[in-house]
Amino acid sequence: MDFDALFTTQLDALKAEGNYRYFAELERKCGKFPKAANHGEDGVRDVTVWCSNDYLGMGQHPKVIAAMTEAVQRCGTGAGGTRNISGTNHDHLLLEAELADLHGKEAALLFTSGYVSNWAALSTLGSRLPDCVILSDAGNHASMIEGIRHSRAQKVIWKHNDVADLEAKLAALPANAPKIVAFESVYSMDGDVAPIREIVEVAERYGAMTYLDEVHAVGLYGPRGGGISEREGIADRITLIEGTLGKAFGVVGGYITGSAALCDFIRSFASGFIFTTALPPAVAAAARASIRHLKESGDERRRHQAQVARLRAELDRAGIPHMRNESHIVPVMIKDPVKTRMLADYLMEEWGIYVQPINYPTVPKGTERLRFTPSPLHTDAEIDRLVVALSHLWKQCALAHAVA
Amino acid sequence: MDFDALFTTQLDALKAEGNYRYFAELERKCGKFPKAANHGEDGVRDVTVWCSNDYLGMGQHPKVIAAMTEAVQRCGTGAGGTRNISGTNHDHLLLEAELADLHGKEAALLFTSGYVSNWAALSTLGSRLPDCVILSDAGNHASMIEGIRHSRAQKVIWKHNDVADLEAKLAALPANAPKIVAFESVYSMDGDVAPIREIVEVAERYGAMTYLDEVHAVGLYGPRGGGISEREGIADRITLIEGTLGKAFGVVGGYITGSAALCDFIRSFASGFIFTTALPPAVAAAARASIRHLKESGDERRRHQAQVARLRAELDRAGIPHMRNESHIVPVMIKDPVKTRMLADYLMEEWGIYVQPINYPTVPKGTERLRFTPSPLHTDAEIDRLVVALSHLWKQCALAHAVA
Repeated sequence: MDFDALFTTQLDALKAEGNYRYFAELERKCGKFPKAANHGEDGVRDVTVWCSNDYLGMGQHPKVIAAMTEAVQRCGTGAGGTRNISGTNHDHLLLEAELADLHGKEAALLFTSGYVSNWAALSTLGSRLPDCVILSDAGNHASMIEGIRHSRAQKVIWKHNDVADLEAKLAALPANAPKIVAFESVYSMDGDVAPIREIVEVAERYGAMTYLDEVHAVGLYGPRGGGISEREGIADRITLIEGTLGKAFGVVGGYITGSAALCDFIRSFASGFIFTTALPPAVAAAARASIRHLKESGDERRRHQAQVARLRAELDRAGIPHMRNESHIVPVMIKDPVKTRMLADYLMEEWGIYVQPINYPTVPKGTERLRFTPSPLHTDAEIDRLVVALSHLWKQCALAHAVA
Repeated sequence: MDFDALFTTQLDALKAEGNYRYFAELERKCGKFPKAANHGEDGVRDVTVWCSNDYLGMGQHPKVIAAMTEAVQRCGTGAGGTRNISGTNHDHLLLEAELADLHGKEAALLFTSGYVSNWAALSTLGSRLPDCVILSDAGNHASMIEGIRHSRAQKVIWKHNDVADLEAKLAALPANAPKIVAFESVYSMDGDVAPIREIVEVAERYGAMTYLDEVHAVGLYGPRGGGISEREGIADRITLIEGTLGKAFGVVGGYITGSAALCDFIRSFASGFIFTTALPPAVAAAARASIRHLKESGDERRRHQAQVARLRAELDRAGIPHMRNESHIVPVMIKDPVKTRMLADYLMEEWGIYVQPINYPTVPKGTERLRFTPSPLHTDAEIDRLVVALSHLWKQCALAHAVA
């Protein structure tokens, strides 16, 4: 059987609909963020990155660099095993304690990625709690969807951020079935923020546990970077808070926090936790340094919000339509995969501005977009230049302007 | 609903059957492997690690340390995004080229872990190839089992390493269904080696693609560390070779290699690849340095095999029964979870020898064991001391000796 032909047929279909993905080859330059080198067909040149999830530039913070370097020299490059078989390092436990403290929980558990933390935790909860029903927000991330699917538990999808719909769906379920309400605080692609308090209150009324993904909020919101749940003062009423070390904290990895029994349960039964090599101690040390810094320093968060506000104001002034939301994510909707790619290519080639076109399956078809993520390290001049470039583009392409 | 009570009930059951896991807290010491500090209840002390999957001690190799340190200084601590959205770094592409070369394939694709590479690749192949049937060796790793399960493709389990059974099962399937024969080269817990050539020949006769997990073989076997498939000169006939950067290469991460179309297919459709932050460039740089070194140097492999042979010979001389196999993994069967833990605790407390008790679900119930993994860095004296300790233990516990 010609397997390559089977693969190529499906890839060709992807290309025909404009959803085939071309990765931009970058070379991050420590100390220069948001500048990076782009390796293109015509050689290497500097570009400004406008779509990084290293939201605060912590990946180049001197304390974080120093912690990772020190731990590499001290412990070597890898953990040497799964957490059970020789892979648990002192640095992992220090980081887990730091994370539990960040969210005010009894315990935390590290995973190799945020994806794996969602997938492993939800698949374990859904499959091991008898008759469990998972109520999943319609906008939840792929990692949550796949975890729920893998659990084979009953799944009920509620309308995105719609508390009334959630309540109606909770009310329709048997009172004695274990229920999990799974949702995010900041949704990564639209940047909208969930009504966490209302969701928690409804869940509590129906005896459901709450599972909150804060990956696009940890480090960024709350007085110590504990996320939207910290900012809203409601973290203590959420059963499980999941987060990442790979976005605002600038490293890699994922985690859950919750009661000691909850974390021990996932630790003891989750295949995706048990059967995988632990994160390098140096990654754990770097992440811990980043978290500790952001617990104490609010400067990065303030400057972040200021630059986000500046970009929005400049876009408004230029009449460039962008999606309104309360977060740091600035989506400019194009609604066609081919056009989105053309615009991104133009920005890269003509302006040295790198923003990846966002297409299916990251967003639904017909909602393709450019998604800008200003950081505290984007200068005012860089923001102004981006808006000038977009203005040129808008005129050239005769795209509809927003009403001024 | 009292969720903690639900969790605790299941944890208590695990404890009652002796399968609850206690992680040993270590502190790896660069330059001292296999020595590490153990943080115990009575303080910190040095122990000798006998169960690491850093099989060659490459996690502390000066070239690997230097590459990771240099890349942290150059690029910072994280990739900053998914591979699609600003996360593809020059170091990732260099590493993928290195891996493709290692296995003589057109292309390679990196994942955050070996677990994720198996789970993502098999779930994508199984779900996207219409009417696909996956023929899975009965001994396959959890990551493969979960990937197949997640794909919801038809699954046929063939007897472990039994080529006749595989052939019978292939023959019973419709000729025109796409078939994938999924297996490993070195099985991690028994250390036995698959008859790769025979499996490939049978698969070819039935037009099936071959999916080979080499995680416990890459770096360790073959003239350049390409695994058992390189040693047997059959890598070019295997459709997909999967491996890890977290064991013999001493870092963290996983990968697949195969045709360009195959890797592009997984790259384009695998949820577990698309929706996750890329590995730090520094991890990629460290892994590449390790692979390059082991492509050129056979010293580590020779010394590794010599120390494995020495341990086996000394165990034989002392009459300590161990499972025979062709690999570097030396299992000593205890067949009871409580006894296995007691023995491991005794070795740690009395001798400073750390070997994790291996229990369910890592191995089937009733096959609990101590699993020793000698490295090139374990000295003759350390091997002798381990055997003396085990001899004491065997006498004390009056366990059955092997027939001399």
